[in-house]
Amino acid sequence: MDSGRLTIRKRKTLSDQLYGQILEQIVSGTLEQGEKLPSENQICSAFGVSRPVVREALRKLQDDGLVEARRGVGSFVRKRPPQRLIEFATADSVSGLMRAMEARMVVEKATAKLAAQRAGSHEIARIEAALKALDDTMQRREVARDADFDFHLAVAEASGNEVFVTMLNAIRDVMERAIDVAQSITREGSQSRIDRVVREHRQVYEAIVARDAEAAGLSMAYHLLQSRQRVTDYAREE
Amino acid sequence: MDSGRLTIRKRKTLSDQLYGQILEQIVSGTLEQGEKLPSENQICSAFGVSRPVVREALRKLQDDGLVEARRGVGSFVRKRPPQRLIEFATADSVSGLMRAMEARMVVEKATAKLAAQRAGSHEIARIEAALKALDDTMQRREVARDADFDFHLAVAEASGNEVFVTMLNAIRDVMERAIDVAQSITREGSQSRIDRVVREHRQVYEAIVARDAEAAGLSMAYHLLQSRQRVTDYAREE
Amino acid sequence: MDSGRLTIRKRKTLSDQLYGQILEQIVSGTLEQGEKLPSENQICSAFGVSRPVVREALRKLQDDGLVEARRGVGSFVRKRPPQRLIEFATADSVSGLMRAMEARMVVEKATAKLAAQRAGSHEIARIEAALKALDDTMQRREVARDADFDFHLAVAEASGNEVFVTMLNAIRDVMERAIDVAQSITREGSQSRIDRVVREHRQVYEAIVARDAEAAGLSMAYHLLQSRQRVTDYAREE
Amino acid sequence: MDSGRLTIRKRKTLSDQLYGQILEQIVSGTLEQGEKLPSENQICSAFGVSRPVVREALRKLQDDGLVEARRGVGSFVRKRPPQRLIEFATADSVSGLMRAMEARMVVEKATAKLAAQRAGSHEIARIEAALKALDDTMQRREVARDADFDFHLAVAEASGNEVFVTMLNAIRDVMERAIDVAQSITREGSQSRIDRVVREHRQVYEAIVARDAEAAGLSMAYHLLQSRQRVTDYAREE
Repeated sequence: MDSGRLTIRKRKTLSDQLYGQILEQIVSGTLEQGEKLPSENQICSAFGVSRPVVREALRKLQDDGLVEARRGVGSFVRKRPPQRLIEFATADSVSGLMRAMEARMVVEKATAKLAAQRAGSHEIARIEAALKALDDTMQRREVARDADFDFHLAVAEASGNEVFVTMLNAIRDVMERAIDVAQSITREGSQSRIDRVVREHRQVYEAIVARDAEAAGLSMAYHLLQSRQRVTDYAREE
Repeated sequence: MDSGRLTIRKRKTLSDQLYGQILEQIVSGTLEQGEKLPSENQICSAFGVSRPVVREALRKLQDDGLVEARRGVGSFVRKRPPQRLIEFATADSVSGLMRAMEARMVVEKATAKLAAQRAGSHEIARIEAALKALDDTMQRREVARDADFDFHLAVAEASGNEVFVTMLNAIRDVMERAIDVAQSITREGSQSRIDRVVREHRQVYEAIVARDAEAAGLSMAYHLLQSRQRVTDYAREE
Repeated sequence: MDSGRLTIRKRKTLSDQLYGQILEQIVSGTLEQGEKLPSENQICSAFGVSRPVVREALRKLQDDGLVEARRGVGSFVRKRPPQRLIEFATADSVSGLMRAMEARMVVEKATAKLAAQRAGSHEIARIEAALKALDDTMQRREVARDADFDFHLAVAEASGNEVFVTMLNAIRDVMERAIDVAQSITREGSQSRIDRVVREHRQVYEAIVARDAEAAGLSMAYHLLQSRQRVTDYAREE
Repeated sequence: MDSGRLTIRKRKTLSDQLYGQILEQIVSGTLEQGEKLPSENQICSAFGVSRPVVREALRKLQDDGLVEARRGVGSFVRKRPPQRLIEFATADSVSGLMRAMEARMVVEKATAKLAAQRAGSHEIARIEAALKALDDTMQRREVARDADFDFHLAVAEASGNEVFVTMLNAIRDVMERAIDVAQSITREGSQSRIDRVVREHRQVYEAIVARDAEAAGLSMAYHLLQSRQRVTDYAREE
């Protein structure tokens, strides 16, 4: 491995740690909603990291909707994620979980579309079973990590393309941790919140059964988008 | 692992083998372009496999543009891939290579878009270096497997999302074999064919440099589509 | 205009009329959910139309999720739309309204994405005003046709591309009728249904304000998908 | 119509005029490739327009790849379009032509996908006839405006959704002018350039015939992207 790649890797690791430290201050309220973050220079010296590391951390916080950049003015706290986010995951690892959500939106939109076109009765039965287990477990207010993962894996299996299954299995660890966090936050929420999560999964299932590829891909992408927002936005908790 | 999943897996393996055997007959000319394939029933008994296996193999041949289904009439050979396809890859493995191409179109369209939005100067330099190595190697009519893989990995690194890199690395083996086959077929083609492959990569690079996310994603998807067609269509060899 | 095009046009008009007549039988319950439709031949002679006309009508009913084709068996009623659908629109015109929904999903996904990237403060203020009017009017259980249309037009204006505005204005008539039908069905539904429609619009608005192009496009496409389903699926009425 | 909307409209008109004047200076070489543009303030006073007008013009020039913004430094000329661009169209109108290209990429990607799924033999014959006329006319180095427009309209007719046809007809005027400009620039180029334009159309046609929706949509979007670049990039002329 050449040194150019090593430099990129190192920057990524450091930026994820810095992301975690800024995140902790936002969650704890040390940095309040609407408050201006210190300047890039100040962050560089406060944390002893280089400017590219700071920029990458801020860019990721921005991509995740936690921070907002105003051109020529600076970065501001946009929203405050629930406390649970850094209890269930270490703050360091949250950036990785968010990147996994981004990648899943791409891959699983495709698996859902293909599943609607190609799933046989066996594959549909597997998706249905996972959906039922998810519904039952969530209604009991337990963490439905296995059922949730199974649902998404069953959709990938139904895509008729094993390569997507291999890809999801390659990130199984980070997917499961992301599901854990999301499920933990949901099960402490209102009944309507639990119902909404179940309904999002059901819409994916129904579009696959109806052989509506466009609706299946869209429902999956929407579900993952909502899931990402539930995890980062405390105020959305209804 | 439950038996339902095992059944699905076994069907996939058998269907890929059957795919390979039909493919061999198309490449060798035993089944000519435009010729009608035996019926599902006939294939079932000739190869001793179940109907779902036959259907999956035919569906895949159809998705890859090799076979065409006419409703209520049967399946017909659509085009004849180059001999090289089953020399460089075993016939059994071709179906897997084609599925990898499909998955890459999804994932790499996203990495190219994100790279256009997020790549720093380090990442762009890496992509440029891989492009130069690819161009030099191909102009010498050598197989540019490493440079080709490096180019695509460098774009993934530039996406600012390590999860995509993990996904591509998880299918590195099948990606490299697919690149091998495509490169082998290309380097025996005309100079204009070699130029075209290099140009497709250059368009991706230029769109990333120009920060044009739409153009970057589109150029990457188009390149992979063309690549898939070069591998399956003998007649396109110019 | 050449005769080939005339033939296509005539087939489209006839197929929309046939669509309307089958739709009426589904809404009235003459054709029950799960019931098999007459064969293509039977429909040809019953309505005195050619086979291409019948196929196009059935294909459209299928695209809209009202009818389901089982290969080699025939077509079956999938779901029963609310009575309101053919009260507010003539049965003849429903097919056209559904095609407008399909086109809007394509165009407005793009306008929402671009609005997130390009909207200035003026444009955002217009979208916000339309959202407020929509919310107020719907909470009073009135038909918010103007506010609804204004919302979608304001998003198009915010895309920074007048051509999209021209396109939406060119179909304004059919868009307004589709909005009328959807709004009429919604306002007679439960409060939670009204809240859902308002929330879908709000999500689009919030994604634009947050400059999240991916989320904006996805939320818009999801809203139009849901809207299409509310109009065609009686059972979804909660 | 309220005053907010009038303000937005007026800004758009003025920004398109300013776009045209800056474009003229780039084409004539008054502003050289790589040269820094005057600051926003300087442009405001030189042309007597407000800052939002200047920003919109610069944003459009950037979207079209003609100008590049370097954060905190200013805007620079990226590439020089061919002289022909402002001979065939007035400089004022070029911005509108470019916006039409952007909208067409969205709409026609969808029409090509749907055509691959729904086109009957009549519709395919129409597309084929337009392709043949386009090829013949371009090989004679004449401007194939009608054949080009017919090709794209025939694909829209084949989408099975009249609303897309209505949308394209609503922008027929600007589409025809854009085709005129592109065709005029192409017919004065090399033979390989003419062949490339014909091949791009043929790829769309072949994907529709092969019922490959993904390939059809991608080939159409790629063709329009290339077309946009041919019009704006003098150096690409080979």
